[in-house]
Amino acid sequence: MLGSGLIGTFYTMTLHQQRGRDRVQTVYSRSEDRAKEFAKTWDIPNWETDMEKAIRNEESNVVVVALPNNLHKEAILLAAEAGKDVLCTKPLGRNAAEAREILEAVEKAGVFHGYLEDLAYTPKTLKSLESVKNGAIGDVLWTRSREAHPGPHSDWFWDPEQSGGGAIIDMGCHCIEIGRNFIGKDIKPVKVMCWAATMVKPIAAEDNAIGLIEYENGAISQFEVSWTYRGGMDIRDEVAGTEGNIRLDHFLRTGFEMYSDEGQKDYVAEKAEKQSGWLFPVGDEVHALGYTHMFTDMFNAMDENRKPMEDFYDGYIVNEIMDACYRSANSGKWEPVELAIWRGKTNVPHLQKFNDYDEQHYLIKEEKLPDGRDKVIIKNKETGAVSEKIINKIEDAKG
Amino acid sequence: MLGSGLIGTFYTMTLHQQRGRDRVQTVYSRSEDRAKEFAKTWDIPNWETDMEKAIRNEESNVVVVALPNNLHKEAILLAAEAGKDVLCTKPLGRNAAEAREILEAVEKAGVFHGYLEDLAYTPKTLKSLESVKNGAIGDVLWTRSREAHPGPHSDWFWDPEQSGGGAIIDMGCHCIEIGRNFIGKDIKPVKVMCWAATMVKPIAAEDNAIGLIEYENGAISQFEVSWTYRGGMDIRDEVAGTEGNIRLDHFLRTGFEMYSDEGQKDYVAEKAEKQSGWLFPVGDEVHALGYTHMFTDMFNAMDENRKPMEDFYDGYIVNEIMDACYRSANSGKWEPVELAIWRGKTNVPHLQKFNDYDEQHYLIKEEKLPDGRDKVIIKNKETGAVSEKIINKIEDAKG
Amino acid sequence: MLGSGLIGTFYTMTLHQQRGRDRVQTVYSRSEDRAKEFAKTWDIPNWETDMEKAIRNEESNVVVVALPNNLHKEAILLAAEAGKDVLCTKPLGRNAAEAREILEAVEKAGVFHGYLEDLAYTPKTLKSLESVKNGAIGDVLWTRSREAHPGPHSDWFWDPEQSGGGAIIDMGCHCIEIGRNFIGKDIKPVKVMCWAATMVKPIAAEDNAIGLIEYENGAISQFEVSWTYRGGMDIRDEVAGTEGNIRLDHFLRTGFEMYSDEGQKDYVAEKAEKQSGWLFPVGDEVHALGYTHMFTDMFNAMDENRKPMEDFYDGYIVNEIMDACYRSANSGKWEPVELAIWRGKTNVPHLQKFNDYDEQHYLIKEEKLPDGRDKVIIKNKETGAVSEKIINKIEDAKG
Amino acid sequence: MLGSGLIGTFYTMTLHQQRGRDRVQTVYSRSEDRAKEFAKTWDIPNWETDMEKAIRNEESNVVVVALPNNLHKEAILLAAEAGKDVLCTKPLGRNAAEAREILEAVEKAGVFHGYLEDLAYTPKTLKSLESVKNGAIGDVLWTRSREAHPGPHSDWFWDPEQSGGGAIIDMGCHCIEIGRNFIGKDIKPVKVMCWAATMVKPIAAEDNAIGLIEYENGAISQFEVSWTYRGGMDIRDEVAGTEGNIRLDHFLRTGFEMYSDEGQKDYVAEKAEKQSGWLFPVGDEVHALGYTHMFTDMFNAMDENRKPMEDFYDGYIVNEIMDACYRSANSGKWEPVELAIWRGKTNVPHLQKFNDYDEQHYLIKEEKLPDGRDKVIIKNKETGAVSEKIINKIEDAKG
Repeated sequence: MLGSGLIGTFYTMTLHQQRGRDRVQTVYSRSEDRAKEFAKTWDIPNWETDMEKAIRNEESNVVVVALPNNLHKEAILLAAEAGKDVLCTKPLGRNAAEAREILEAVEKAGVFHGYLEDLAYTPKTLKSLESVKNGAIGDVLWTRSREAHPGPHSDWFWDPEQSGGGAIIDMGCHCIEIGRNFIGKDIKPVKVMCWAATMVKPIAAEDNAIGLIEYENGAISQFEVSWTYRGGMDIRDEVAGTEGNIRLDHFLRTGFEMYSDEGQKDYVAEKAEKQSGWLFPVGDEVHALGYTHMFTDMFNAMDENRKPMEDFYDGYIVNEIMDACYRSANSGKWEPVELAIWRGKTNVPHLQKFNDYDEQHYLIKEEKLPDGRDKVIIKNKETGAVSEKIINKIEDAKG
Repeated sequence: MLGSGLIGTFYTMTLHQQRGRDRVQTVYSRSEDRAKEFAKTWDIPNWETDMEKAIRNEESNVVVVALPNNLHKEAILLAAEAGKDVLCTKPLGRNAAEAREILEAVEKAGVFHGYLEDLAYTPKTLKSLESVKNGAIGDVLWTRSREAHPGPHSDWFWDPEQSGGGAIIDMGCHCIEIGRNFIGKDIKPVKVMCWAATMVKPIAAEDNAIGLIEYENGAISQFEVSWTYRGGMDIRDEVAGTEGNIRLDHFLRTGFEMYSDEGQKDYVAEKAEKQSGWLFPVGDEVHALGYTHMFTDMFNAMDENRKPMEDFYDGYIVNEIMDACYRSANSGKWEPVELAIWRGKTNVPHLQKFNDYDEQHYLIKEEKLPDGRDKVIIKNKETGAVSEKIINKIEDAKG
Repeated sequence: MLGSGLIGTFYTMTLHQQRGRDRVQTVYSRSEDRAKEFAKTWDIPNWETDMEKAIRNEESNVVVVALPNNLHKEAILLAAEAGKDVLCTKPLGRNAAEAREILEAVEKAGVFHGYLEDLAYTPKTLKSLESVKNGAIGDVLWTRSREAHPGPHSDWFWDPEQSGGGAIIDMGCHCIEIGRNFIGKDIKPVKVMCWAATMVKPIAAEDNAIGLIEYENGAISQFEVSWTYRGGMDIRDEVAGTEGNIRLDHFLRTGFEMYSDEGQKDYVAEKAEKQSGWLFPVGDEVHALGYTHMFTDMFNAMDENRKPMEDFYDGYIVNEIMDACYRSANSGKWEPVELAIWRGKTNVPHLQKFNDYDEQHYLIKEEKLPDGRDKVIIKNKETGAVSEKIINKIEDAKG
Repeated sequence: MLGSGLIGTFYTMTLHQQRGRDRVQTVYSRSEDRAKEFAKTWDIPNWETDMEKAIRNEESNVVVVALPNNLHKEAILLAAEAGKDVLCTKPLGRNAAEAREILEAVEKAGVFHGYLEDLAYTPKTLKSLESVKNGAIGDVLWTRSREAHPGPHSDWFWDPEQSGGGAIIDMGCHCIEIGRNFIGKDIKPVKVMCWAATMVKPIAAEDNAIGLIEYENGAISQFEVSWTYRGGMDIRDEVAGTEGNIRLDHFLRTGFEMYSDEGQKDYVAEKAEKQSGWLFPVGDEVHALGYTHMFTDMFNAMDENRKPMEDFYDGYIVNEIMDACYRSANSGKWEPVELAIWRGKTNVPHLQKFNDYDEQHYLIKEEKLPDGRDKVIIKNKETGAVSEKIINKIEDAKG
């Protein structure tokens, strides 16, 4: 485990809880104090302040990178060199160039690589993906993914030199990959439109952003990220398809509500701002956030000699989309996604299946009127004229 | 009452229910059958198929325009000529040029004009506007307004010649005006970015659109409209400010849930698609949708000789924003909002109040750590360096 | 309007808002100061501190009793004597003996009498009652009605001499009448079981109670009332029927959510306890609580010379049920409801429609197994033996 | 693993998923076909149709009883005799006599015993229990636990000879133990009041029941169970305390909502009745229902040589409470809980802490009036008179 911050803690907590058979063998931290304390808290046999030594530790088969963004490349290149399997937290790189270098390094070394995109692995996301694949909502037209909270907890996030950007690089990567999963990972993202602004915080990077990603089949994926949101951690996804829709709430409204007059005097949930009044705790946070299913997939994939659901190729695609977002935020127009590496489908036609009403007409809409009659709105294929028509009498309708 | 369709019905239902003192005196419909039936259903003394005669009816003080969009201008110009007060449903015109002509006509005639923007008048919207004005959520940074359903009920909506556009002209007008109310009606909308597509329906206009409107103070207003949404009428608003946030749901999740195995065999709610399974009815639809408070404001304003909350000037502004949206959807870039008429503030600076931590530093964030210590993330005003700092010892924190 | 407290205020606010044609002509208060101030606030032409003079005021056709419970009888008897129509807030009397005397007085005088049971009139309740009558959830088996908050706002509520009891008399009356409406007002309540306790407050009456009312058809109506609930006003109803269920939330979760860090500095909603953190305001309280539809029904009933949905007969029945509740809370066993006056059905058989599976068996349950097979659980009519049976092969099921 | 039905499946699924280190070694089923198939599906090395042989299997350290209720005693007695640790599903016995015999047998044998009360182990329940212990809602006054669905899936549940009763024995055991956890497992349950009826199904046992359990400290625990509920599995808990309240929803409203027009064509969630329209799936059912945390606690307890959170003593207490419920349902009055074995506190006084307002008065309630003044309602300790008092002037209040 490289890294002893919040993410390193969540990862270790996930691995060590619930009688899992996988354990952290060594922990690396830049600070000796933190390394020692972390090892003690989580009952880890070994600690290091030298990254390379930690990576080459003989007890460990797998290197987990839970470091600030500017250290991902260095750590992964060392791991690849050492021939170790490697799992890396999001985002893969600070930009697409870094991500591509990382991807090429692990592929050349032939090691297993897993992209720790936890929010693509929440139980709700996994179960809805399955439903979408089963056709429960028809063709996916639109996804909305939103992550908003009052800002990250460590200084390096706020410095674009170290992190690579602001709220987009921190949370947009989640939203983009969630949308990509729902629309289909083999459908090419073609262009993006992005707005980004520094609205509240005295920083160089964006603290708020909204983006649209258009896919080759015409589907649209919308993301909203904010470091200035008040009231806790707002993580919600929505998906609309031709035959239905899905709404997921991962944090604030999940069936756990508490009113506490005096206050809980304890941890409510990640980034909760209040300790009294109406609170919305989460039962098992690491599970709700996808960590459990993510590591299960990663280690099962290693055992079964297959790719995990998310690997560095996915991390690279996300970085390319984010690069296009930053270009669009500057240019004020749609920017193409420039994919040097693309392994999905090409030349996918636009979603569009007009329904025939009869030989001459398309069906636009049909509805039952309050009095029981059925009305259709149709369009003449030749003239383009739109008209409405009652297709049965009241007597028939009620009979 | 000009018009006997769904909107004319909702308006008349609102006016005639709950022991109101205002009554419809005459109804105009293009079809004699519908005019007669409407007059009978709602106990209206007179009906007409000649619009001008209806407008000049001596019993009526006020003309309510509930007609297809392409008839708004004609009806209002006739009303202005007749010196009658006039209320018009949304959108005011099919485009800004029409809206401007309408506005200038009523202002020249000196008649009262009310813009029937019902969703700005829902009890939830009104109460949250009051809270926002009281400072409950600080400065407004972002609004999201969403209206989505499976498509409108009459043929003319689907024909851009008659309606002026697609989902934007039909529902974007609501979302835009709601956002404008939250951000402040005297803050100038400066530019828009809009995506629009015909994804599912065999029509010439857009059936889905997403737009961003940037205001002069930097606030951003987002709208999402869809004619292809499945599952009922999705009307939700969100507002985020520097000190809090608001979430409104006007239709599907309002504390009324029903599971019906066999089905309700009756009207559930506007645009509900199913009659069995889990249903989400609305107790009093016209009230929930703002019609009641809207007409109360309109008639009270006439009695008190004041402007209503929404008048044709607002309708004009909304049309200008929508025109810019259509331009942006075509150009693929941000487009300026071109306001020939603007009566609000000008040269409003961007929202931005950096908090000082001390003389040398801005405060980026402060948070309480799980062990009770307080951490701050600060930025050096000169060097721009970001750092974090623990500001008390554990002993002090817990003592 | 007799009474100038919270209820008198809510009633007057309802009558005077939204351009209603009904106005308060005179207000009576025991205190001259309050009478004057109330008249001024609500623009009421006349005020009195002599109840009889107020009742006999010539401008008023209707007497509205919004007084403490111990003054209901006196006020209504005076109104009946004066031949005035009379509307009285809940509960009708402090006990069934008072309620019966009141009912007999108004019936003898032949005046119109309306029981102001607002929560039976909320838009959600009215709409669900209609669905229930349409058969949307089959036969009603169970109702749950809950009203809980941190306690009433005036001293007389807390003194059983003046109020007639505690939380049961204050709020149980609502819950009981709501359950009665869903089960059917012509179905006889036959017995009750009630628990009541003084858990927190230094008072003589109960501050918490739970009751069960069994109706002649076997349906069960459950109520929960509390004066010690924290977090706002909890008003929820649930109804379960053989074919479906209904859940209503009238206050805390109605699609209006706000997070305010600094606080609203203003009125949130009745009995809200906090002004900051997550808040759940209500858009239009008097409408949500049923006042609007209640007065509409009352005055329409007068105009149409018909009974309102709720009259003093209903008030009397509720008082008899509450009397039985108090007897049961003391005896620790089911107590019969003793109805000296009953105008509904008698000898109604128990709900019970066993479904036949075949001639020899009843059907207990059928379900689709995950593999597509259909399973039934059946009961032999003669032997009573329960067994399960797969009724198709996998091939058939999937074919 | 003894048993290959739904519960055996859920247990095995929980143990084998998420890289757990605990595995099922042998499965026993009464039917050879089911035993073989189960062993194959879950990759279990051995299967048996002879219960004793299965229990004495040398590879297994722990016997898990997932059998119909009438086989619990036999299986546990065999396991105790074999000196094996034993875990048993709920309820422990068909009645308290069986439960007591079971408890005495395992204690005499000195084997580890765990009561598989999964709903006491849901992540939400565990986290709220911790908050309650931290004082977040003050003293617990009332709990409500509700479990309702359209009926169990196997024939033996519907036959009281095999199961020991109806909906109470099937689901009341969950609700009772959840309430007991919140109120405190060392607080004695003293008496119960229960209503039970066979409302819909052609069976000998109750298909609906409601019960109240009074604890020695005056706290009240309410349960509601139904086998006739429509719309899915309704599992909700509520807790009210002197300083706050908690609401848990474990199934139908947990932040996962889907509208599917055509239907999911797949498993939605346990006991969901529809496959189309608005659906409420659950992300990870066995986790949401508590199975994961339950087995973690059980096996950790064995490793750490400590008692689990729930053992057979708890199972015995629950059976005694249920016996009292059946007595009360017959007698129509409160019935004492007769605890032959009780290891908690005795002579616990009633919760009751009156707050002093001053030396002469108790404080009943204080509230801030809309105009900013503070009002108190107080009670004279000697005379018992209740009065209200404004304790500051408007000027002071606003100053």
